[in-house]
Amino acid sequence: MSTFKVILEYDGTHYAGWQCQPDRRTIQAALEETLATVAQERVSVIGAGRTDAGVHALGQVASFRSGAILTPADWFRALNGLLPKDIAVRSVQRVADDFHARYSAIGKLYEYRILTRRGRSALDRHRVWHLHKSLDLDAMRTAATALVGRHDFSSFEGSSTEDTNPTCRLERLALYREDDDLIRIEAYADRFLRQMVRAIVGTLVEVGMGKRAPGSFNTVLAARTRAAAGKTAPPHGLYLVRVDY
Amino acid sequence: MSTFKVILEYDGTHYAGWQCQPDRRTIQAALEETLATVAQERVSVIGAGRTDAGVHALGQVASFRSGAILTPADWFRALNGLLPKDIAVRSVQRVADDFHARYSAIGKLYEYRILTRRGRSALDRHRVWHLHKSLDLDAMRTAATALVGRHDFSSFEGSSTEDTNPTCRLERLALYREDDDLIRIEAYADRFLRQMVRAIVGTLVEVGMGKRAPGSFNTVLAARTRAAAGKTAPPHGLYLVRVDY
Repeated sequence: MSTFKVILEYDGTHYAGWQCQPDRRTIQAALEETLATVAQERVSVIGAGRTDAGVHALGQVASFRSGAILTPADWFRALNGLLPKDIAVRSVQRVADDFHARYSAIGKLYEYRILTRRGRSALDRHRVWHLHKSLDLDAMRTAATALVGRHDFSSFEGSSTEDTNPTCRLERLALYREDDDLIRIEAYADRFLRQMVRAIVGTLVEVGMGKRAPGSFNTVLAARTRAAAGKTAPPHGLYLVRVDY
Repeated sequence: MSTFKVILEYDGTHYAGWQCQPDRRTIQAALEETLATVAQERVSVIGAGRTDAGVHALGQVASFRSGAILTPADWFRALNGLLPKDIAVRSVQRVADDFHARYSAIGKLYEYRILTRRGRSALDRHRVWHLHKSLDLDAMRTAATALVGRHDFSSFEGSSTEDTNPTCRLERLALYREDDDLIRIEAYADRFLRQMVRAIVGTLVEVGMGKRAPGSFNTVLAARTRAAAGKTAPPHGLYLVRVDY
């Protein structure tokens, strides 16, 4: 048996997220089915991040074990040949047997894209969160600084969760404006709670719209309750960019 | 009756191109149907460029006439509300009655995107031409210079066409490398022949692969026959970016 690390890109539009669910199309299920076809045996896959329905990935990481006599290059070709067109393998590596895509991860980079312009986008309709009005980026940047560091992020955690540890070290929360009407938000942390990036983005947008004070985020953090933060931003603007080990 | 100029963005993936065809889903037909719903009368639309099936637009221009008592802002809202999600209106303007989206155009900007990397892309599978190997961009740039200017472009014209004038003034043909593996090719001309950009890109790629000499394009132009140039690049890497009047 060998252990493999796979880096995946996917368009999450037509999937019910990463994790296997009965009678739903998921990335994990598509990958496990394809691996089983190639390996001629059942293969279980572990994903670094459980992306939600509609969330995309440029660099999701998955690990699996197989006894099939295949090199990483064989897996690469076979998977890219057989996977659905909206899932692609960026690389396959043989790794140590104790490698675990989820537990071995030391950091993850997410990106969130917001389009602020009068009319909606046709080409990026599944790729950006479209807002009709521009946002006050300076106010959002001011608010964001309060979140950087090691904090209890309960206020930014999606309601139903099995996660018991609410502490994350958010190393970076950076906002960029591109092409006048595109805002990119990068978030890097050692770990993320469920829907944490989307809750942060939704709350930052309320600041950008003038509905929430830029200096209010310390209070939001201290409240340790989801109701203290803003709305959850929609999934289709979110990308899992990279996982570090 | 008033004449209106509409700037359109669309994802050409699920359309049989711009122009109306019996029993096929086209951008023009979708727009005419939506205009008829809004205006409560049959409305004919003229497009600046007849994009092929799978070709995208960031700034296609269409013109139409209507007697409906609607302002440009009314049309903007109504069209964006009713058009399919893969077609969006960027702007609506009232224009002089002699404005004709096709005949009044004085220049068009197209962009072609090529992804050169080992594995295919999931997110951009309908948006870029994927090549497994890198291209010699310098060789392609050398070849491209021969095409700039006023020439008979018959060698780069798709086979079946009603166009009798093969002369175009190609003002710019610029190649850019971005993010290591993305090549963008911009082409600006007063007019384009059918599939001309795709034929130029396909021939440039043969130069980039070392299959064709960088200095051969004068000969290709002089031949005035489609067989002298290279293969036609696929439609899904092509974008109609802007039309000037």
